[in-house]
Amino acid sequence: MVEHMKWWGWGQEGVSFHHEDKPGLAPFVLERVDLDLHGPGAPVPDFAKFSVPPSQAPGPLREALVAAVGAGHVVDDDLDRVVHAYGKSLRDLVRIRRGDFGRVPDLVVYPGTEQEVEAVLRAALDADAVVIPFGGGSNISGSLEAPRAETRPVLSVDMGRMNALLEVDETSQVARIQAGALGPHLEAQLNGRGWTLGHFPDSFKHSTLGGWIATRSSGMQSDRFGDIADITRAVRVVTPKGVVATRNVPSQSTGPSVREMVLGSEGRLGIITEATVQVHRIAEERVILAYFFPDYGSGLRAMHDIAASDASPSITRVSDANETAFTFATSKKSSGLSAMLSRGVKLYAQKRKGMDLSQMCLSFIGFEGSAAHVKRSRTLVGEIVAKHGGFCVGAGPGKLYDQKKFDTPYIRDFILDRGAIGDVSETSSTWATLETVHDNVVAAANRAFDQIGVKGFIFCHLSHSYHMGACQYFTFAYVASGRRDELEEYDIVKGAIQQAFIDNGATLSHHHAVGREHSRWWEQDVSPAGAAIVRTLLDGVDPGRNLNPGSITG
Amino acid sequence: MVEHMKWWGWGQEGVSFHHEDKPGLAPFVLERVDLDLHGPGAPVPDFAKFSVPPSQAPGPLREALVAAVGAGHVVDDDLDRVVHAYGKSLRDLVRIRRGDFGRVPDLVVYPGTEQEVEAVLRAALDADAVVIPFGGGSNISGSLEAPRAETRPVLSVDMGRMNALLEVDETSQVARIQAGALGPHLEAQLNGRGWTLGHFPDSFKHSTLGGWIATRSSGMQSDRFGDIADITRAVRVVTPKGVVATRNVPSQSTGPSVREMVLGSEGRLGIITEATVQVHRIAEERVILAYFFPDYGSGLRAMHDIAASDASPSITRVSDANETAFTFATSKKSSGLSAMLSRGVKLYAQKRKGMDLSQMCLSFIGFEGSAAHVKRSRTLVGEIVAKHGGFCVGAGPGKLYDQKKFDTPYIRDFILDRGAIGDVSETSSTWATLETVHDNVVAAANRAFDQIGVKGFIFCHLSHSYHMGACQYFTFAYVASGRRDELEEYDIVKGAIQQAFIDNGATLSHHHAVGREHSRWWEQDVSPAGAAIVRTLLDGVDPGRNLNPGSITG
Repeated sequence: MVEHMKWWGWGQEGVSFHHEDKPGLAPFVLERVDLDLHGPGAPVPDFAKFSVPPSQAPGPLREALVAAVGAGHVVDDDLDRVVHAYGKSLRDLVRIRRGDFGRVPDLVVYPGTEQEVEAVLRAALDADAVVIPFGGGSNISGSLEAPRAETRPVLSVDMGRMNALLEVDETSQVARIQAGALGPHLEAQLNGRGWTLGHFPDSFKHSTLGGWIATRSSGMQSDRFGDIADITRAVRVVTPKGVVATRNVPSQSTGPSVREMVLGSEGRLGIITEATVQVHRIAEERVILAYFFPDYGSGLRAMHDIAASDASPSITRVSDANETAFTFATSKKSSGLSAMLSRGVKLYAQKRKGMDLSQMCLSFIGFEGSAAHVKRSRTLVGEIVAKHGGFCVGAGPGKLYDQKKFDTPYIRDFILDRGAIGDVSETSSTWATLETVHDNVVAAANRAFDQIGVKGFIFCHLSHSYHMGACQYFTFAYVASGRRDELEEYDIVKGAIQQAFIDNGATLSHHHAVGREHSRWWEQDVSPAGAAIVRTLLDGVDPGRNLNPGSITG
Repeated sequence: MVEHMKWWGWGQEGVSFHHEDKPGLAPFVLERVDLDLHGPGAPVPDFAKFSVPPSQAPGPLREALVAAVGAGHVVDDDLDRVVHAYGKSLRDLVRIRRGDFGRVPDLVVYPGTEQEVEAVLRAALDADAVVIPFGGGSNISGSLEAPRAETRPVLSVDMGRMNALLEVDETSQVARIQAGALGPHLEAQLNGRGWTLGHFPDSFKHSTLGGWIATRSSGMQSDRFGDIADITRAVRVVTPKGVVATRNVPSQSTGPSVREMVLGSEGRLGIITEATVQVHRIAEERVILAYFFPDYGSGLRAMHDIAASDASPSITRVSDANETAFTFATSKKSSGLSAMLSRGVKLYAQKRKGMDLSQMCLSFIGFEGSAAHVKRSRTLVGEIVAKHGGFCVGAGPGKLYDQKKFDTPYIRDFILDRGAIGDVSETSSTWATLETVHDNVVAAANRAFDQIGVKGFIFCHLSHSYHMGACQYFTFAYVASGRRDELEEYDIVKGAIQQAFIDNGATLSHHHAVGREHSRWWEQDVSPAGAAIVRTLLDGVDPGRNLNPGSITG
């Protein structure tokens, strides 16, 4: 059995965000976006009340699929089809709650082997059907839906049955893993043998190895372990040209890299069936420390210096002042985070007399490795932080952050149920441009809030550091005005943020992919000639536009 | 003026390898491959004695090119055309000495700006001409020649005038550099501002940034600085679809990466005009230490453990026993290397009584960074080396290695002038397979030597380490039997080595590219479906096969 997230929202059935134990949140949200958190929120939508467009799969296609994977693994059940209609973008959440299911797949197919995937793809191409690979369904860029006007049969190919750790080569520190393995399952299998992949995106609990590769994902500890593009050393992909199998080698100069074309391909080249990935021995020590900086600029400059140093931390994260205030507001009374942070603030006020407390920024820096490495790295980081006017407030808040790091996406559903739109957009740019990108994105969002006449809130953190720059991750929220369609209004805000990325030399997405959500900015991002080259590749491999048509290229 | 290497061989006019000051070499070479180094060697070929096929460039194409770059930069001089006919592979050296110039380019064009490159490409496509981009001309994979039967006009586009360091972004630690910049010129410009690129391939003195990118090059210090694929963060390329300009950002999830498609494209997608590359502050300390291991397997296992440790050296290199013996034989009496190594051997014999001295392996490990990093790293490496039965013999040999590291390619010409074939083949594979790859490649080469009836010699070193594996670099030599065409004979040996790479799970080239020399193994390397995907890309961007046709895909 393949488990899925809630059909109508993020995460596990029965798990949701609550604010009752976070006394600071309701007043904070009321002040910042005029949203009253008291009150019941919208009820869970009743699936029975919605009408789902019937499956239009032609008989011969269905028979070919049944022959390929067995009758039990070709599903036309309405709920299963709706689960596979979208990912979990804000747009998806709004539409699904409305009962607007778009072009629902006609069949969901669950192959169990690579040979079955080949047979599925063959059957689909023979029937001129559309094929959309599906991992955990956590995508928030619109990479999982068929075009609304698609008249051909649509198949969602769910890779959830192909979730095994096939092999660990302990000498070479690589593991061969099937593409449908979800984060926790994959880590549990590796941890059982003393290894870790080290890839922990926000979506970790509900996303798969194949999905990470197809979208060029990054994780919270990518500073240490690399992005999935670094971690993935070899891939197997079922394509219209046959099964692509790249070599399990560390590096090669073999022409334009096939492995790299598969990274970020979002199903446009075929279905990823397995990958060979770098794994690491579980580290001797692991700690996440919290720091305060007098303002975001100081925090950014400290992260820059840390990246240029020998410190090699596993996590570098610094929130801007708005996000810091939000983190304070969401801290549980019982958890002690609030108290810990308050002690930090008090310490801060003592140390930095006359400074503007409202500009204070919270930072988490992670250390992982041998005890000697962790010790040395902490010392180096401490010196750099001090140079930029910051200081450490200990390991307590980091421990809580680490425990709660995968819970954030639940908040979006919680506020949506109360009439507010909340979403994220992330980008990367050079160290020299980070602060300008930040300030101009915030300004663009605020102009958009003004344009639609709402009191909006936007905050940001630096989430990954590189030699030449970093990723900045923006979160924004506002109460829908009610004067326009809420998705039209959302487009104005989201569009302003994305355009500000592009206009300021940043990229349309650091690790969420292009999908349909960002395809408007794709040509601006990669240049028209670059876009023409990618189109040549995708259209050439898939001349019939059967493979996830519309994703990436629009 | 753009300077070129000797038309008939490697390197600078007037510079060549000598053996008189290396008393061990002549007896060694006589014993191992029956080659007598005494005697004058072949004289430098007299260009005037050869006949060069006349330029076949049609008038309108020539006029369009003159309009594009100016009359002084469109050259049909015979010597210049022959200089651009080939790279410097063994096959190229043999052919050029024979006066077999292949399909000599009809014109050599020297653009000075990206706009001029655009005009050149436009003129070429309008005239259905073939375009072969040319950097330093050091390629040894056959990436620089037109097909022998090409009937269309052939242009070599020499990028040597576009060699400027355009900009250093000191905050972001990146530099924008024109593609035609040669290694020493580029490093000198960066060093002048306190920076280094850190990319030092064997070809460094005669290769360009654009060439490195087009072939996915690696350098001797790539363990620290990364391969050129890691170093190169943004590219500009003049293609038939327009000017591709990728964003100057650290990482992005923007679909199949355009930047990555350009890496290793060998001119098949267009002409690279500039790149933004990571640069590093010149390190506080830099030292290369020499070590001995009881045998190659111990050395490999030590490199594995070093790669898995926190040591982060800048160079990891270990020679097999044959290469170690060769290094001893080529050491200058005056340099003291011989004496240093002899002291090392004596020490070794004392420390490891009863061990087989003929199996002893020399290793160089480089350390670069802050004084604290170098100290820590040396200690860590020392412990690992000791665990594997090795020991340090100091910094003296490493200093000499560092001074002489770019001289090795001259040896090939020297022995070729004396009737011997010498060449290199390199590959990468997982840690688990390294020793098997080594032994099977050596066995395959020895079988090939037997087949052609010569006394051959093959040796190898591990040259780069990664998390999951390493590069092994093989060098082989033998005296041509005289019973067959020497290139036919060479093919048997080179082919056996390359096929052994593929048959043992390694790749056809770690950093020398595919070109025409390795294209026979390309489909086996990337899988038939992978090859089909790359062909789709290349043929789609260049349907007329005007861009370096035949490179990579054969």
